[in-house]
Amino acid sequence: MNKAILLKSRPKGTPTLDNFEFSEQEKPTPADGEVLLKTKYVSVDPYLRGRMRDEKSYIPPFQIDAPIESGIVAEVMESKHADFKKGDYVNGMLQWKQWQTHSGKGLQKVDETKAPLSAYLGILGLTGLTAYVGLLNIGEPKEGETVLVSGASGAVGSVVGQIGKIKGCRAVGIAGSDEKVRLLKEKFGFDAGINYKTTQNMKQAIEGACPDGVDVYFDNVGGDILDATLKNMNRYGRVVNCGAISLYNETEQPTGPRLEPTLVKKSLKMQGFIVRDYQEQFQEGTEQLATWLDKGKLTYEETIVEGFDEIPQAFIDLFDGKNKGKMVVKV
Amino acid sequence: MNKAILLKSRPKGTPTLDNFEFSEQEKPTPADGEVLLKTKYVSVDPYLRGRMRDEKSYIPPFQIDAPIESGIVAEVMESKHADFKKGDYVNGMLQWKQWQTHSGKGLQKVDETKAPLSAYLGILGLTGLTAYVGLLNIGEPKEGETVLVSGASGAVGSVVGQIGKIKGCRAVGIAGSDEKVRLLKEKFGFDAGINYKTTQNMKQAIEGACPDGVDVYFDNVGGDILDATLKNMNRYGRVVNCGAISLYNETEQPTGPRLEPTLVKKSLKMQGFIVRDYQEQFQEGTEQLATWLDKGKLTYEETIVEGFDEIPQAFIDLFDGKNKGKMVVKV
Repeated sequence: MNKAILLKSRPKGTPTLDNFEFSEQEKPTPADGEVLLKTKYVSVDPYLRGRMRDEKSYIPPFQIDAPIESGIVAEVMESKHADFKKGDYVNGMLQWKQWQTHSGKGLQKVDETKAPLSAYLGILGLTGLTAYVGLLNIGEPKEGETVLVSGASGAVGSVVGQIGKIKGCRAVGIAGSDEKVRLLKEKFGFDAGINYKTTQNMKQAIEGACPDGVDVYFDNVGGDILDATLKNMNRYGRVVNCGAISLYNETEQPTGPRLEPTLVKKSLKMQGFIVRDYQEQFQEGTEQLATWLDKGKLTYEETIVEGFDEIPQAFIDLFDGKNKGKMVVKV
Repeated sequence: MNKAILLKSRPKGTPTLDNFEFSEQEKPTPADGEVLLKTKYVSVDPYLRGRMRDEKSYIPPFQIDAPIESGIVAEVMESKHADFKKGDYVNGMLQWKQWQTHSGKGLQKVDETKAPLSAYLGILGLTGLTAYVGLLNIGEPKEGETVLVSGASGAVGSVVGQIGKIKGCRAVGIAGSDEKVRLLKEKFGFDAGINYKTTQNMKQAIEGACPDGVDVYFDNVGGDILDATLKNMNRYGRVVNCGAISLYNETEQPTGPRLEPTLVKKSLKMQGFIVRDYQEQFQEGTEQLATWLDKGKLTYEETIVEGFDEIPQAFIDLFDGKNKGKMVVKV
């Protein structure tokens, strides 16, 4: 049999298991030009929350009673496609199913001998590239500057801090537990870390951790932490708006202090992006990340949950910050 | 005698005449290396409101009981400086005084035969340059795109729309009266205009005036109009944060909907600036503006108030939108 995970209902606030439905389907047979794929590793990511909402965005929303999709590494079990053979591993946007057929369009082959398969969903995949293209294109870090990252122990944040260090910057991370803050400093080489859950005054804490002010803020969370950071930004600072996980589960329109007077006063830039905006840099970026990884300049953490049935819970756990680094489900 | 206008107290909310004090001083005598200047035209600008607040910004706040300063065109009445002679006209950041001495540093000579003296405070001065450097560097308008401007009939906004047209864009302006909207279309060549004071639903009005969405928003006002515009921005749109006049007189921290999720979702850029950030483009910009003016591609409006004593009221009137185009006081 072939299990699939469908969107049963659109979450109100934080997603719950009730929003998902397991369905049993037939194992499909590939037509000519198709491959049969067996899911090996499934990426769960905060941005999927956005696709569960019924609103226009850069990609269409998930449909009710249809399978959810995300980044997946799969094994080719049968091929009727000239470019793929049985035993190949591929990476692509695939459905939350144990088995599926695919036209091959948009699939990349990945090499298990070069890096563990799960790495292709993280450091060498879209999350590593998100850090790479966002920090370098929008953040434009210069030697001697200070790069502050929120969601710093997460899949994207931990790479941002390390690239900041490679570029000669002071890297400071904000995370949600003392253990994560320790990880930032001991494993990822950040210069300082802030546990926002035990910090009363974020503005002061950032001031303390960034004595020369903040030049680049890579924002994964939005909300109050963004506000506190803006107060510490230097003139001509750059905010890379990568995500706003603190707001994704709000059911009312979130409000906050108006930022536009601060942007004018300090000549600040705030710029949002999605990784696909920089598709033409993917090859260069992946090669650069692989080189840094190989030279030991880059390291990564992943939280691997086992079992296809655990995918929805692993996704839900992202919003409680239960992951360290990239959250991946091994099927 | 020599009248000066001092900041008597910091405004709470909208400035009032009580915040200003006239003082009678001696007419000064220039020392060696100095010039004696007689004020001819005084620029009053919304950004001066920011300097009346006692807070750190890109330029120090005005001090209580000290003269206010702004852009002024003055005549050299006596010169002990090699670079200036009696009868020269100069433009610079000068004090609100009828007479003052000056070291000459930062003063530019202006030519009355090329353009009226008041134009050097507007279209050929910092306001024209503000439109020029902000729109071109941050807005990056491309042929066929839509440029929306708030405060469109003002000194900066009217130039932004015209440069947008020169660059082959659709130019749409937001202003505060039907008469101003008529001016936008009839005098400045905007394609459409919106009177925000009589519009119930700004989001819909912008949608109607910008059928292909907004690619560049040059924002002079901030607040609700910014919010309504963001809903109409196209992917990869650019917001030029030039000012936030709708918020300058607020006494409480203004709040509004959080913008960061929209920035991420549409890959938008919002960037603040002040004209001095682009000082290296001033010469090129002034020459370009003068050329366009000369060729009839650019026109301007100014509101000239007469009399030194009227300077504070002219400044206050800016916040009621009593000016059309650049507000200047002729002394």
